[in-house]
Amino acid sequence: MTYDLVVIGAGPAGITAAIYAARKRLNTLVITKDIGGQAAWSGDIENYIGYQFITGPDLVEKFEEHLRKYDIVLKENEAVQTVEKQGNKIKVKTDKAEYDSRTVIIACGKRSRELNVPGEKEFKNKGLTYCATCDGPLFSGKDVAVIGGGNSALDAALQLANIARKVYIINNTVQLVGDEIMLEKLTGNTRVAVFNDARVLEVFGDKFVSGLKIKQQGREQELTVQGVFVEIGLLPNSRIVPQAAKNVSAEIKVNFANETSIPAVFAAGDVTDVPEKQIIIAAGEGAKAALSAFRYLARNRFNQE
Amino acid sequence: MTYDLVVIGAGPAGITAAIYAARKRLNTLVITKDIGGQAAWSGDIENYIGYQFITGPDLVEKFEEHLRKYDIVLKENEAVQTVEKQGNKIKVKTDKAEYDSRTVIIACGKRSRELNVPGEKEFKNKGLTYCATCDGPLFSGKDVAVIGGGNSALDAALQLANIARKVYIINNTVQLVGDEIMLEKLTGNTRVAVFNDARVLEVFGDKFVSGLKIKQQGREQELTVQGVFVEIGLLPNSRIVPQAAKNVSAEIKVNFANETSIPAVFAAGDVTDVPEKQIIIAAGEGAKAALSAFRYLARNRFNQE
Repeated sequence: MTYDLVVIGAGPAGITAAIYAARKRLNTLVITKDIGGQAAWSGDIENYIGYQFITGPDLVEKFEEHLRKYDIVLKENEAVQTVEKQGNKIKVKTDKAEYDSRTVIIACGKRSRELNVPGEKEFKNKGLTYCATCDGPLFSGKDVAVIGGGNSALDAALQLANIARKVYIINNTVQLVGDEIMLEKLTGNTRVAVFNDARVLEVFGDKFVSGLKIKQQGREQELTVQGVFVEIGLLPNSRIVPQAAKNVSAEIKVNFANETSIPAVFAAGDVTDVPEKQIIIAAGEGAKAALSAFRYLARNRFNQE
Repeated sequence: MTYDLVVIGAGPAGITAAIYAARKRLNTLVITKDIGGQAAWSGDIENYIGYQFITGPDLVEKFEEHLRKYDIVLKENEAVQTVEKQGNKIKVKTDKAEYDSRTVIIACGKRSRELNVPGEKEFKNKGLTYCATCDGPLFSGKDVAVIGGGNSALDAALQLANIARKVYIINNTVQLVGDEIMLEKLTGNTRVAVFNDARVLEVFGDKFVSGLKIKQQGREQELTVQGVFVEIGLLPNSRIVPQAAKNVSAEIKVNFANETSIPAVFAAGDVTDVPEKQIIIAAGEGAKAALSAFRYLARNRFNQE
C-alpha cells in the first residue's frame, strides 16, 4: 500500500503537520525515534503563545495527546535511513521496514553537537549529558559545568542554578549571547560563574565524571564537577535526503510554502534553513508543510493501488 | 520619544510578535482596534496544537493574558492610518496620535469582504452580520442564511446548525470547498440546506432582516430568514503602507524572515502573502517578524533621543 503522506519526526513541526494532514483526511504515517524532539528537552517555556508558562515535557505531553486523537499510524523508536524519490512514489527506508508514500514531510529536527574531546564518549550518561531538562534534577547539591554560550546554554544554566550547588559556564567566545531576560537572570546569581574565551580539553573521572580540564586565555586549569552539560549547538538530521538542496549548515532549503528542491518532498522545523528555531515557529511551519502536501496531492494524479 | 518597535494589530501574529519583542527587551508599542483579530471570531478550534479543543474567544483570552504579562504599551480602539518611513525613523499616524519608531511590524490582518447588494448596509447589525461566533447565539430557533462556500462559511454553518432551526448555505460556486471533516459533518445534517451556484440579489426586511432574494441557475426566489451571515472572504488591511510591495490580492509581500520591501518594516500573519491563514501559522510568523526586527535593531546604529 502507498501512504498519502509520511511525516518523519514527531517534534512540534512533525506533530502539527500530522494533525493538519489527518484533518484533511490524508492517509498519514508518522515515523519517529521519539515524541517531542528538542521541545521535550526544554526547561521552562514562556513563549509558546497561549501558555504563559509550561515546561517542555508538559507541552510535549499536550502535543502528543493532541496527535493521538487522530487516526494516524505512528511508528515510534524507528529511525529513517533514506528517503528516495522513484517516479511517482517516494521510498522511505528505516532500520526496520520500507514504506511507500506519495508525499513526505521531513521534520526530524536537529541533534546535539558533540565536544569531540577525550572522556566525552566514555562519560556519556555517566555525568555527561546533552539534556539539562532530562538529567538536571539528578545533580541536586552537586557542582556542574555547562559547556556553551548561547540560549540553550543559558537555559540549561538557569535550570541548574535552581538545583546544583555551583554552576560553571564554559563559553569559547568573548561573551554570552542570548535573550536579555535570561542574561539578566544569570547576572548576579552567586551560584553561577562564567568562564569566557575558554574551551574544554578533557572530561575526566573514575566511574562517573569527577572533573573537567579547561584552557582559558592560554592558561590550563581543572574544575571539580560531578556533572557536565554539553550545550554547544545542534546539527540538522538532513543526511537521510541526500538529493535535497541544503545550505552551508546542512539545513534543507525550503521556500515559504515549505517545498524542498525535490517535488513531493516537503520539510519543516529545525531541519530547514528557516532562520529561527522556536516551538511556535516550527509548529506553524509544520502546518504550512501539511497544507502544501495536501495541495500537491490534490493537483497531481496518482494510479490507484 | 522613539519606540524600538511598533506592532500594528493584536491578532495571533501581533500578540506573538509583541511577546517575543518584550522578551528581547525591546521598547514596544502595540496599536490595535481590537484584541484577537479573526481568531476572536472563530468557533471551535481543534488545530491550535497544544489545545485539543478550544473556542476562538477562549484562545484569544489566553493570548491576551499572555500579552498583558509583559511590559508593553498597548493602545486599543485606535486605528492606524499611515506608516511612513522618514530617514531612520518610521512615523505611525493613527486616528488619535502620531508615534515614532525604529521598526514596525504590520500585523493588522484582514477584514470581511462585503456582498455589495441592496439591504446589506441597512441591515448590518440588524440581522446581518460578518461574525457567526459573535452573533450566532442571538438566532436560537430562528432560520438563517450563511453566504459563502469555503471554510469560514462551513464553520459558520456548523456553529449555526447547533443554534438555529434551519440553516441555508448560499454558495456561488458549483460545490462547497473546505476541510473534509467539516463537509462530512454538514452532509446529512437535516437542518442544513445548500444552494450551490446561487447568488444573493437583496437582503430585505423592516426593522430587522426578514428575508433574502437569491438567484439560482437563472431562477429567482425568496427565502424567509431572520439572520444573514456573510462569509465570502477577507480583504487585507494593507492600505496603511502604500509604499510596500504587494501581490495581486493586495497582500504585503514578505520573505521567509518576514521582511517587506521597506527596510525596518516587517509584516506577519493574514495581511501578508504567506499562503495559509491559520492561527498557529500567524503566531509562528509573528515570532519570526519580531526576531527579525530585533536583529535589524542590533545591526543598525541609531542616534539616541
